[in-house]
Amino acid sequence: MNTEMLLKLLQEKNYPRFKEELLKKQNVDIAEFIDTLDAKATLLVFRLLPKEIAADVFSYLSPESQSQLSVAVNEEELQEILNELFFDDKIDFLEEMPANVVKRILRNSPETERNLINQFLKYPDDSAGSIMTIEFVDFKKELLVRQALERIREYAPVKETVYTCYVTDSSRHLEGIVSLRDLVIASPEKKLAEIMNTKIISVKTTDDKEYVADLMKKYDLLAIPVTDNENRLVGIITVDDIVDVIEEENTEDFHKMATVGKIDINLLDAGPFFLLRKRLPWLLVLIFMNIFSGAGIAYFENTIQTVIGLVFFLPLLINSAGNAGSQAAALMIRALALGDVKTGDWFRLLQKEIIVSVLLGIAMAAAVSLIGFVQGGLNVAVIVALAMAAVVLVGSTIGMSLPFLLDKLKLDPATASGPLVTSIADIAGIIIYFSIATWYLGL
Amino acid sequence: MNTEMLLKLLQEKNYPRFKEELLKKQNVDIAEFIDTLDAKATLLVFRLLPKEIAADVFSYLSPESQSQLSVAVNEEELQEILNELFFDDKIDFLEEMPANVVKRILRNSPETERNLINQFLKYPDDSAGSIMTIEFVDFKKELLVRQALERIREYAPVKETVYTCYVTDSSRHLEGIVSLRDLVIASPEKKLAEIMNTKIISVKTTDDKEYVADLMKKYDLLAIPVTDNENRLVGIITVDDIVDVIEEENTEDFHKMATVGKIDINLLDAGPFFLLRKRLPWLLVLIFMNIFSGAGIAYFENTIQTVIGLVFFLPLLINSAGNAGSQAAALMIRALALGDVKTGDWFRLLQKEIIVSVLLGIAMAAAVSLIGFVQGGLNVAVIVALAMAAVVLVGSTIGMSLPFLLDKLKLDPATASGPLVTSIADIAGIIIYFSIATWYLGL
Repeated sequence: MNTEMLLKLLQEKNYPRFKEELLKKQNVDIAEFIDTLDAKATLLVFRLLPKEIAADVFSYLSPESQSQLSVAVNEEELQEILNELFFDDKIDFLEEMPANVVKRILRNSPETERNLINQFLKYPDDSAGSIMTIEFVDFKKELLVRQALERIREYAPVKETVYTCYVTDSSRHLEGIVSLRDLVIASPEKKLAEIMNTKIISVKTTDDKEYVADLMKKYDLLAIPVTDNENRLVGIITVDDIVDVIEEENTEDFHKMATVGKIDINLLDAGPFFLLRKRLPWLLVLIFMNIFSGAGIAYFENTIQTVIGLVFFLPLLINSAGNAGSQAAALMIRALALGDVKTGDWFRLLQKEIIVSVLLGIAMAAAVSLIGFVQGGLNVAVIVALAMAAVVLVGSTIGMSLPFLLDKLKLDPATASGPLVTSIADIAGIIIYFSIATWYLGL
Repeated sequence: MNTEMLLKLLQEKNYPRFKEELLKKQNVDIAEFIDTLDAKATLLVFRLLPKEIAADVFSYLSPESQSQLSVAVNEEELQEILNELFFDDKIDFLEEMPANVVKRILRNSPETERNLINQFLKYPDDSAGSIMTIEFVDFKKELLVRQALERIREYAPVKETVYTCYVTDSSRHLEGIVSLRDLVIASPEKKLAEIMNTKIISVKTTDDKEYVADLMKKYDLLAIPVTDNENRLVGIITVDDIVDVIEEENTEDFHKMATVGKIDINLLDAGPFFLLRKRLPWLLVLIFMNIFSGAGIAYFENTIQTVIGLVFFLPLLINSAGNAGSQAAALMIRALALGDVKTGDWFRLLQKEIIVSVLLGIAMAAAVSLIGFVQGGLNVAVIVALAMAAVVLVGSTIGMSLPFLLDKLKLDPATASGPLVTSIADIAGIIIYFSIATWYLGL
């Protein structure tokens, strides 16, 4: 049943039918539906949900709906929802709430939980700690497979995952990993110590979440254990949360490639001044860089005045240099981000880039010389063809090398944005073009 | 132990020690190590691997190493590896192999498998069918939980995942889904029909794999069932393969943003002519577009000749228009790709873009008027400030709207690349700048 029909049932106050149809949907879709409602209807619909799915639906709601609801429901209802939430979802929720809501919730939490929440809220935004959850299954290695399976039966409803279980010693140091698959296959009377995998891949709470994503991608993990500085197991991160990290990371690189700062909210919710702050800084930096292009032009004023027709080809030539450079930069940034290419591969890739850009330059010079001939005769054709081949080579080499240089300087290669490469290529392009013209025309 | 020490042990022919150290590594890392070896050493090391991990390591090898090995090993060894591979890994492998290797393998496969392989090799590159696997667990709904668990115990070693099981009727139509977690919690004497989830999310073999990725992200799935045109269950796709699809998709958009065609191989392995083919087409299109910029300049030759100093500001102004436009385009492309924004949101976002770009324009006009004043006096300062505010507004509006236009035309919004937006903004920028100058100077 589609949204319009659900809304109609709601307006008709046909609640039994509405509820029946609503519950045929996935929890994610129920949350999406509730997100479109006003405050009053949100509360009404939420109260219609059966207890066993209410918390799950709540965890998928937008921060706005969550905030609305947490103010609208009574104390008891709010505690009920919060108790049912997985710890990572609870932290996500608290991070988005205004201070007064957080205070109210913390006041009503038992002290141990309050301390834990406070500790989690303190993990830096980009750290593994900030996205981990504490609902993991841990066992001692003396336990028998049979006993472990029994415990999983008890734990399953309240743990985020039961598919990967962790074996710890008495001080909670991680000793091994047992998947539910291993447990199901193993003979029931074996000890966990005999079947656990001791080749452990784990991360620290302070590790960058991008690093966590890289490990989970590489080793195809469903969950990864997180340890504190004393190597004690404190949480796990599951693959569904890592998929979100991967998308965030890609968004950041994508925006950076176009000189936009980090935006981690929906574009529809972003205010104009917020967007201004994310966009203006680089635009101003680039203006500053473009002054050099202007200075280049001023330097060749004499040449330009003599053959004013040369200006006709200026956008074409400097853009070509910038475009070829942007292509090369984008290829390198992405390959570095994926780990396909390492800093040490620069020289090998440079050699290839030179071959490619010479070929590109020849093809583009041929195209542009034709236009040059039609527009300004043989001299202009020769000048623009030579200039095109040269600027494409130089632009590509700059664009290709800049991400490696940034990487070497421990900066983000994605800072080598298209506009930055274009600006640098412009300066080089202007100097090359007018130098060739000045020399060829004997000015 | 690091790679250098492993290589040393190998050179010293200290095989027992070498093997011991090698096997402490994860299978992925063993494959990575083998990938660095020459053909002879590859075969040697591969033969040292215990049978139970050989196939898994093989599935992680680069296509080059896989190819080398499949030629070097004898018939029997090859069959052994292939029998142990999951079906999706086998297909991936066969897709990369030269025709003669594929033929040899098919010749030695039983007929049913040969038919299945041929069918899989025919699925289009971007389809769900091309990445699914056939090693899923399916049950009939009359089965008891206890019986299902017993079967899982048997199946687990040969199935890609046992965490999501599928309930089908006698003609293999999908009726429900049961997770291993549900099975473990449920009372052993219940029928699957009583505990299965009938709110099924599934895809067709012909669905685009990006669509599959979107569903798995949205619903946090570990696996998704794939059905054929008659709605029969034919395969599943697991989350680890979807993570790869997400990254591929991001790479494609990232490259497209810089006018580079689809590159699905490691950059280090890409030949110069392959790269040329991926880069040249758009560069030539952009040259063609830049002719219009040149024509704009030619049209205003008179104005330029009168105040040649105006050319000084040309790169600065047109680049600013292009940069602001690229920012706006990148924001929209990414938001559309993530589904944060829909085609229908265009007008709402346009209004916001106008506010943001007016603010950007004012700030940038202020910066550039200062340079204008120093460089060319009050007149130039006024002209470049006015022009800057105007070109940033126009560039941003174009950059912001183009992805929506492409989306509306059922084209990929990511085609609104930085260079394309820059080229369009250039033309607009040149006309605006010199029109303002001509008007202001009364030429």
